[in-house]
Amino acid sequence: MASKSAEKSISAYGEARSTVEGKPLDAETVRKMNAYFRASMYLCLGMLYLRDNPLLEEPLKVDHLKARLLGHWGSDAGQSFTWMHMNRLIKKYDLDILFVSGPGHGAPGILSQSYLEGVYSEVYPDKAEDKEGMQKFFKQFSFPGGIGSHATPETPGSIHEGGELGYSISHAFGSVYDNPNLITLTMVGDGESETGPLATSWHSTKFLNPITDGAVLPVLHLNGYKINNPTVLARISHDELSSLLIGYGWKPYFVEGSDFDTMHQAMAATLEQCVKEIKEHQKKARESKTPFRPRWPMIVLRTPKGWSAPREVDNHLLEGFWRAHQIPLTDVRTNPAHLKVLETWMKGYKPEELFDKNGTLIQELKELTPTGNSRISANPVGNGGLLRRPLHMPDFRKYGFTDIVPGLTSKGGMANMAKFLRDVVAKNMHNFRLFGPDETESNKLSEVYKAGKKVWMGDYFEEDKDGGNLAPDGRVMEILSEHTCEGWLEGYILSGRHGLLNSYEPFVHVIDSMVNQHCKWIEKCLEIEWRARIASLNILITATVWRQDHNGFTHQDPGFLDVVANKSPEVVRIYLPPDGNTLLSVMDHCLRSTNYVNVIVADKQEHIQFLNMEEAIQHCTKGLGIWNWASNDQGADPDVVMACCGDVSTHEALAATALLRQHLPHLKVRFVNVVDLFRLMSAIHHPHGMSDKMWKSIFTTDTPIVFNFHSYPWLIHRLTYKRPGQHNLHVRGYKEKGNIDTPFELALRNETDRYSLAIAAIDLVESLGNTAAGVREELINEQLAGKSEAFDNGIDPEYIRNWKWPFPKQMS
Amino acid sequence: MASKSAEKSISAYGEARSTVEGKPLDAETVRKMNAYFRASMYLCLGMLYLRDNPLLEEPLKVDHLKARLLGHWGSDAGQSFTWMHMNRLIKKYDLDILFVSGPGHGAPGILSQSYLEGVYSEVYPDKAEDKEGMQKFFKQFSFPGGIGSHATPETPGSIHEGGELGYSISHAFGSVYDNPNLITLTMVGDGESETGPLATSWHSTKFLNPITDGAVLPVLHLNGYKINNPTVLARISHDELSSLLIGYGWKPYFVEGSDFDTMHQAMAATLEQCVKEIKEHQKKARESKTPFRPRWPMIVLRTPKGWSAPREVDNHLLEGFWRAHQIPLTDVRTNPAHLKVLETWMKGYKPEELFDKNGTLIQELKELTPTGNSRISANPVGNGGLLRRPLHMPDFRKYGFTDIVPGLTSKGGMANMAKFLRDVVAKNMHNFRLFGPDETESNKLSEVYKAGKKVWMGDYFEEDKDGGNLAPDGRVMEILSEHTCEGWLEGYILSGRHGLLNSYEPFVHVIDSMVNQHCKWIEKCLEIEWRARIASLNILITATVWRQDHNGFTHQDPGFLDVVANKSPEVVRIYLPPDGNTLLSVMDHCLRSTNYVNVIVADKQEHIQFLNMEEAIQHCTKGLGIWNWASNDQGADPDVVMACCGDVSTHEALAATALLRQHLPHLKVRFVNVVDLFRLMSAIHHPHGMSDKMWKSIFTTDTPIVFNFHSYPWLIHRLTYKRPGQHNLHVRGYKEKGNIDTPFELALRNETDRYSLAIAAIDLVESLGNTAAGVREELINEQLAGKSEAFDNGIDPEYIRNWKWPFPKQMS
Repeated sequence: MASKSAEKSISAYGEARSTVEGKPLDAETVRKMNAYFRASMYLCLGMLYLRDNPLLEEPLKVDHLKARLLGHWGSDAGQSFTWMHMNRLIKKYDLDILFVSGPGHGAPGILSQSYLEGVYSEVYPDKAEDKEGMQKFFKQFSFPGGIGSHATPETPGSIHEGGELGYSISHAFGSVYDNPNLITLTMVGDGESETGPLATSWHSTKFLNPITDGAVLPVLHLNGYKINNPTVLARISHDELSSLLIGYGWKPYFVEGSDFDTMHQAMAATLEQCVKEIKEHQKKARESKTPFRPRWPMIVLRTPKGWSAPREVDNHLLEGFWRAHQIPLTDVRTNPAHLKVLETWMKGYKPEELFDKNGTLIQELKELTPTGNSRISANPVGNGGLLRRPLHMPDFRKYGFTDIVPGLTSKGGMANMAKFLRDVVAKNMHNFRLFGPDETESNKLSEVYKAGKKVWMGDYFEEDKDGGNLAPDGRVMEILSEHTCEGWLEGYILSGRHGLLNSYEPFVHVIDSMVNQHCKWIEKCLEIEWRARIASLNILITATVWRQDHNGFTHQDPGFLDVVANKSPEVVRIYLPPDGNTLLSVMDHCLRSTNYVNVIVADKQEHIQFLNMEEAIQHCTKGLGIWNWASNDQGADPDVVMACCGDVSTHEALAATALLRQHLPHLKVRFVNVVDLFRLMSAIHHPHGMSDKMWKSIFTTDTPIVFNFHSYPWLIHRLTYKRPGQHNLHVRGYKEKGNIDTPFELALRNETDRYSLAIAAIDLVESLGNTAAGVREELINEQLAGKSEAFDNGIDPEYIRNWKWPFPKQMS
Repeated sequence: MASKSAEKSISAYGEARSTVEGKPLDAETVRKMNAYFRASMYLCLGMLYLRDNPLLEEPLKVDHLKARLLGHWGSDAGQSFTWMHMNRLIKKYDLDILFVSGPGHGAPGILSQSYLEGVYSEVYPDKAEDKEGMQKFFKQFSFPGGIGSHATPETPGSIHEGGELGYSISHAFGSVYDNPNLITLTMVGDGESETGPLATSWHSTKFLNPITDGAVLPVLHLNGYKINNPTVLARISHDELSSLLIGYGWKPYFVEGSDFDTMHQAMAATLEQCVKEIKEHQKKARESKTPFRPRWPMIVLRTPKGWSAPREVDNHLLEGFWRAHQIPLTDVRTNPAHLKVLETWMKGYKPEELFDKNGTLIQELKELTPTGNSRISANPVGNGGLLRRPLHMPDFRKYGFTDIVPGLTSKGGMANMAKFLRDVVAKNMHNFRLFGPDETESNKLSEVYKAGKKVWMGDYFEEDKDGGNLAPDGRVMEILSEHTCEGWLEGYILSGRHGLLNSYEPFVHVIDSMVNQHCKWIEKCLEIEWRARIASLNILITATVWRQDHNGFTHQDPGFLDVVANKSPEVVRIYLPPDGNTLLSVMDHCLRSTNYVNVIVADKQEHIQFLNMEEAIQHCTKGLGIWNWASNDQGADPDVVMACCGDVSTHEALAATALLRQHLPHLKVRFVNVVDLFRLMSAIHHPHGMSDKMWKSIFTTDTPIVFNFHSYPWLIHRLTYKRPGQHNLHVRGYKEKGNIDTPFELALRNETDRYSLAIAAIDLVESLGNTAAGVREELINEQLAGKSEAFDNGIDPEYIRNWKWPFPKQMS
């Protein structure tokens, strides 16, 4: 019987103990729910074990089993149990429910529910609701050519695969922001709960507005064990756990036990209480038009790991222990006694009472599910691309710098681009958000606050009026957790909206692994016909390495690009706009694109501008090109190609070109700038790649190339190792040399400063022989003078800081 | 006056409010502490602003200021305040205290304390305790050629730079494990607290044994603001925050306010209470020999951000607001009024009362500090290498597989190596720990439990007896947070001990950024004479991509190596032992090494063995080499080089070699295996690199090379792009192609299977012309047959799974 929660629950066994009293279900409903739960568990075991004999009409034989047993049993029961109880409330209250499955490898629970509610067979007609369909449904699971053991993109209704743990809550919040009717029911594994990203994501309620956003209903599934360990949250006292969740800002309800009948009553009562509270909070805020932060309800569901499995096999614990995590009985192919245990266990679910002779779920159980798109796995949010509407885009050209004198005009491209972003926000108030870990202002993007402030549902102080820029209905999401920002953004775009993350360059490595997982998700989606395209994941990287001279070595790491470049060419794009107008063009392009991860690298400080808007668009369209105004090889073969990629890198390469042209006017220098990094790759290997023919027309096959790159230099070699004349390519970039420096000194340490580049060019042009020895020495002297001046005064000398392109006549 | 904490603190201002009552300080002590605090604050401002006139003996002029103002003021006061209060208790109770500074860029607070206690001048005699020394001390801060704005390696007593936020608590716990007398006083920033890694690291108490470990005393510094936002924890109610910390398992004491006199009393009383409780818990556990998990005490210190700065400047808030985060007044060089504000503010600390005319701290303040190594910044743990003792190493050769028949014997190299690890644990019970996120058993390392079980201070259940392997005094540290494991390990080795982290390959990307930061730390340490070498950070990566076929696409990412390869050659090493004996040799080498990040990649399953122990040692010593027994080019130029790196990759390359030799017996194949990845680099660029001469002797300059690599193929190109004959190199590796596969099918998708490799070789050997067309076709047919058999049955065919090297006569 449901009763008050025990003071200290040390076990998941026995009759239900729960915070909410009451028995909302009549006996007949309990009987049906038990049957439905058995059907789900039966399907789960079928997925793990069977390739044939799906209804166990014949005695179970080794031939019916898969040759390789794969999959996970541990969390299936709890997830199924939760899902089916929400079905009852969907029918009762006409709810809009998405399900996020946090525990790793819990897919059988999810898949069984989708199959039972008929969605799976609608999406995949060969997995029909009959015996043959069930057999195929079983066989495909964790089978070559089939589907994985997570809630992969192939899973109807899933926006969260959960291959890597820790992001269920942040994804769930992303899905409900600006989705006022949606409740995302989120299973959180107690293993997953130990990860850092999950631990901090509980704070997401401080950024949820009950008027304009929906709600997340977490069910923390305490099943007690990870792969081979108890979980931390299952082994602290009831009081401590309760205190923790209250401290995170939630109102936890406990449902604990293993007895099916009482557990159904307890879960039904508790889930209904939670839904009612959510609706009440929303009603209160919406009717009063006063947003507030309630203590949102959540559930702690403590059930045995692998619930409904045999408690012991061969004197070793199975149900309720870590042995139930993966395949519960691993040797059924070779151990006839265990094969028998499996058969008895499966038959104990009484499939013949649940499915008719054709293998179809019987009508009285079918009636427990909602219909149409109310079925959880048919929720369109789960295929968010369906709901995606293109952004209303202002014309980015109108924000461009006009009257650019290439190499002379200095402006802040990032702060200017922020005006464009401001208007993107303003024109898409329910469809676009900007995310960042407390760096939006520092990154010169604060102009966006004019269209939408920072969302804040924590306490407000009087002092916030002095430039706090906080609002319950803001459009900028800032928490000092790159993980949470990225998770929110992913959830937001996966559910059909648009967004942009801005981050300091060195610390975007914090989310390497999350971005990897998102890349993998969208790549798989490309293979799935019914998955509609979602907005691209846009990442704006700024406060870049070359301007982290003063923050020192810990703040210098441009290697995120290497991580991204490992992902499939189908889904990744990297742009390094050299100036303000190209940044605008790139940003416009990225915000309009779908199904990519776009990485944009651009510094936030004032820099020399190079291209007017028309030139910028042309340059970005080509992705790379020769800058004729900076070159002096017109109509002839160059002696050297000075190439660059990245804004600061372009600046120094241009200064090096000027030095060469000043000191060695007869030397023919071709200046090449790259915006779209993957243009460097072969067209065979990347959709943006260029042909060898085009490569030759730009870089030639026999001219030395000095290439100044924003990031670690090896990436350029890796992208170009098969190019004709590849051996002529000399790449400079960040070589992990830094400290507290001036910008010039930092460049110098890494040999990316103008002098080092010019000297490299001189050394590479064989025809110069010794004729340039004097020039070389002069450049070295200037370099050293600049260094010691910086060293003495703590700032770079004027002639470096305020350098301008010295060839005005050639600029137009 | 100290009083009970307010029910809801909405401001940091006013007289102290604290949980602990009492006024332990007499008026004279309060006066001195105020003076000492002023001295510290004065030094902080000096570091931020001054390059001259350190004692403000002359009126402050622009010339006295640094040209570029850098550094952070926000958290300095709170950190100084906490440190100096611990000084009192060190003197009173003879405590062993390490200080970990969590808030970003709070170094002035730390540096000022080290300078005041005299340690800084002892370590850096030119920064002496006089006027000239003070001037140098000021100027070097955030100045080219000087020191950074974090607690960088140059900082005496620091093991935690804090450039990237989130690791203070896990580092602190790492330092106190097996350090029973140590208390690590840990300032935790409220910004930092929002990061995931920090949020979960509070749970570390569940892994702390009060008998054998020391204690961490966290001071959560609620100064209210990040760069440009309020912090979450400063804007929830007192009750919620208190509940959160209790839920995490701590006993929080609050100290809140801004009034100096009462704050000194409150902090003195509270800190003393915490120290007493720590000692009591330890005494109870140690005397009773019964480890238990107390609610360890901690402090919440709420003071205004930038405490002791002017509250307002030009009608904008400064103290207590985010404007106090970095340089509080930025325009003092150009705004005379603000220069005056600064001068008045600095003079308000009354430097003339604190320092004598020589610039030396006056005697009565000097007496507030402990002496010798009791001074916090002189604690030897803060230069942990001093305390490092080499491991007692068993002879790894004794664990080797004997009687290896190359290519025939199948064994589990990882499970075997675990025996070696077991004995390393047994011989170093207070000096070595194994860390991992719940994967030690799965990674076949459970043999180590015989020497040391898993540390567990959570609740114990009856069922744990059934193979739980939990113990309060275990040696294996498992929590499902790669961040926490890595942070603990870093803290453990930084404080002078040894350890190893084991992790699934795909999810080690979770700690990319942490490993980056650790690499940067040890690289800087190499430049600092007084920093003693610490044990290497050893990372064992297993459950590798080629055996993640069944877990699917999300579990396939071998790209951690790319991240590591970006770090300085001085500090990174990557090993891919091809079999069990080489794994032993590599592991032995890594555990003996210092100041590196060693990455070892080895699969955990049974594999064919290749080398006996003597051969293994030779092979590992060389780092790469020709395997003559597998080659048939003896005494002649090869037609093709089949090269490989990584265990599964070696297996398939060997099978490809066998196919070539069976089908084309006249083709001369040279077989090369690489263990030490950086051998491929030039000796100029990496200490392990080899000369071009050696490269040629192995790879030749004109022979096609098929290179089967464990990870993404581009890494090999990047390491070898300047090698002679580089254009002959054809690298195969993981190309981001995967799903639910069999191992063979996964290899096939990425063209790393034996057939693809053999076909590649055939296609590359020009001399073969069309003569091998038939063989080529045959190989393709076998390949397709294997694929479809796997597809039908879910497992690879026998002839692929159980393949053996077919040339027994050539093996010895």
